[in-house]
Amino acid sequence: MLTQPSYRSLRNPTVAIVGATGAVGAELIRCLEERDFPAAGLRLLASARSAGRAMTFRGAPVEVQALGEDSFAGVDLALFAADADTARTYAPLARAAGAVVIDNSSAFRMDPDCPLVVPEVNLESLTWSRGVVANPNCTAIILCVAVAPLQRRFGLRRLQVATYQAASGAGAPAMQELLDSTRAFLDGRPFEPQVFRHPYAFNVFSHNDAVDPLTGYNGEESKVMAETRRILGAANLPVGVTCVRVPVLRAHALAVTAEFDAPVPPSAVRECLEEAAGVRVIDDREANHFPMPVEAQGQGDVLAGRIRRDLGDPSGRSVAMFLAGDQLLKGAALNAVQIAEQMLVA
Amino acid sequence: MLTQPSYRSLRNPTVAIVGATGAVGAELIRCLEERDFPAAGLRLLASARSAGRAMTFRGAPVEVQALGEDSFAGVDLALFAADADTARTYAPLARAAGAVVIDNSSAFRMDPDCPLVVPEVNLESLTWSRGVVANPNCTAIILCVAVAPLQRRFGLRRLQVATYQAASGAGAPAMQELLDSTRAFLDGRPFEPQVFRHPYAFNVFSHNDAVDPLTGYNGEESKVMAETRRILGAANLPVGVTCVRVPVLRAHALAVTAEFDAPVPPSAVRECLEEAAGVRVIDDREANHFPMPVEAQGQGDVLAGRIRRDLGDPSGRSVAMFLAGDQLLKGAALNAVQIAEQMLVA
Repeated sequence: MLTQPSYRSLRNPTVAIVGATGAVGAELIRCLEERDFPAAGLRLLASARSAGRAMTFRGAPVEVQALGEDSFAGVDLALFAADADTARTYAPLARAAGAVVIDNSSAFRMDPDCPLVVPEVNLESLTWSRGVVANPNCTAIILCVAVAPLQRRFGLRRLQVATYQAASGAGAPAMQELLDSTRAFLDGRPFEPQVFRHPYAFNVFSHNDAVDPLTGYNGEESKVMAETRRILGAANLPVGVTCVRVPVLRAHALAVTAEFDAPVPPSAVRECLEEAAGVRVIDDREANHFPMPVEAQGQGDVLAGRIRRDLGDPSGRSVAMFLAGDQLLKGAALNAVQIAEQMLVA
Repeated sequence: MLTQPSYRSLRNPTVAIVGATGAVGAELIRCLEERDFPAAGLRLLASARSAGRAMTFRGAPVEVQALGEDSFAGVDLALFAADADTARTYAPLARAAGAVVIDNSSAFRMDPDCPLVVPEVNLESLTWSRGVVANPNCTAIILCVAVAPLQRRFGLRRLQVATYQAASGAGAPAMQELLDSTRAFLDGRPFEPQVFRHPYAFNVFSHNDAVDPLTGYNGEESKVMAETRRILGAANLPVGVTCVRVPVLRAHALAVTAEFDAPVPPSAVRECLEEAAGVRVIDDREANHFPMPVEAQGQGDVLAGRIRRDLGDPSGRSVAMFLAGDQLLKGAALNAVQIAEQMLVA
């Protein structure tokens, strides 16, 4: 373990949360509380229409302020949980005010000046941070937490992924649309989708991000492929991904096939995952108990199971598995707070 | 096209449906009606507890009879929509009474004396039927309808599949459990699952079939792999499958990666699927409109889209796609009735 390297720059920081009223913002507040993050103070920032709203931090009310150019005076750590445009506009202002930025949007994820960090995987990349650290795509985080230890031990040649993604990735309004449209369906009432183009109740649809007209991959898939390569430090790793929304509230699941450098027995993969930080193996064949979104939600580990030889690869080099992780926690807020914790002066 | 080959054995048959009160049974009745199947009469058979119940065929009431040893006297065509044990017990009795049997269970699917038929794919196998024809697993049917024309044109090396399977595959009680558990969730009431071991409302779980303790594959996956090879006539085709239940009522979806003998442009795959019988291409990248269960349900085609190069295979030989098909129709009842239609004397 590294001890107090140069990136440990924060001491009892004053923390700002940008996008405090969103789904990830709410989880950031809860993570700071539950993990006893040594924040000297908390500033909650959001769009003007949320300004004045009272939220709670450690039992005390905190009034939400409208995000503006002067929002970051005195802030040491700015946690961004807003869209990429907001991050591109306000992260430089936060930096200029002296704050370290951890950004949950896609704005800086492929910026060579900004490390893209999953603490269990590539903590060392924090050492060269220039003050803006990117929090990866939720699906990429969940995938990398489980795949990185396997890559280190067995060498990775290829990844194939199909996702079962929750509503939360599209924010609190998407979660509400799932609930509302489902109730309407059960009551036999018509429902007009507002957040998504397609019916969500008892349906499955290709991820809502725009699709590249040439490649046919959607934005989410492109992010997962590019960010996974970057996090794993494997610029040429072939990764094929299909991203699909399923009617689940807040935990993603992934069917993964990993091809290693040589044949690997599934039992060795299982042992490796049982030792891996941030992973909990749930793989009870007799009880048919494997990772599920309802068990992944609300907790920080990536659940891994269904570890077996991939019979689609006759070489014996491929192992199949099924993962689940809370999109709002390890996929977003928790990972950001874990990064911040690594920056604290001990 | 073959004209009146030897397997055309049925002329205005008297039809029996075994398991008439189940989810597939109800769809069989509807398919016979909607397709104007020239049934001279219809006998509805089910377990003793459903006997006496009145169902409707072509506007007239038909009373359900208890399935018994003498149920098949005078029956020319017996459509079985029951479990494998029932099929193993009663199909020989139906044969002995002179009926042709089309069985929807897994009982005869790997029996070398029983053809396993998807009419669009391997109709020719009907010629050697000894009177019991097996209707394949629903997921295998949907997969093969789309993959077989590609196999014929491009040569198939390997298949990788992750499924998004509906409740209907586990029968009408499973569909009801999905509805009931979802309503309980929305109302904040506890719900004790009866059909499945795991919560179904807003959850995803590994397919409920028993898992082989040695291989880690569940029964559904084993069926899909073995039956796909048999239907495609490719005994050594490597097929890797992950079968997952999603909270959807009656249409399955599949994320598929197919590796061909040589690099194939996705546009050629799309053209091939546009010409394929039983397939409807839905692949609008601009509108983000691709196959969805809610659009697959209630109609007979397999929907295919998201046709693109699989970036997980650097050889360029692999193409990814997404399929959806009605589990109760093409995945079960419709395929069975289509087989029966091919047996009719013109």
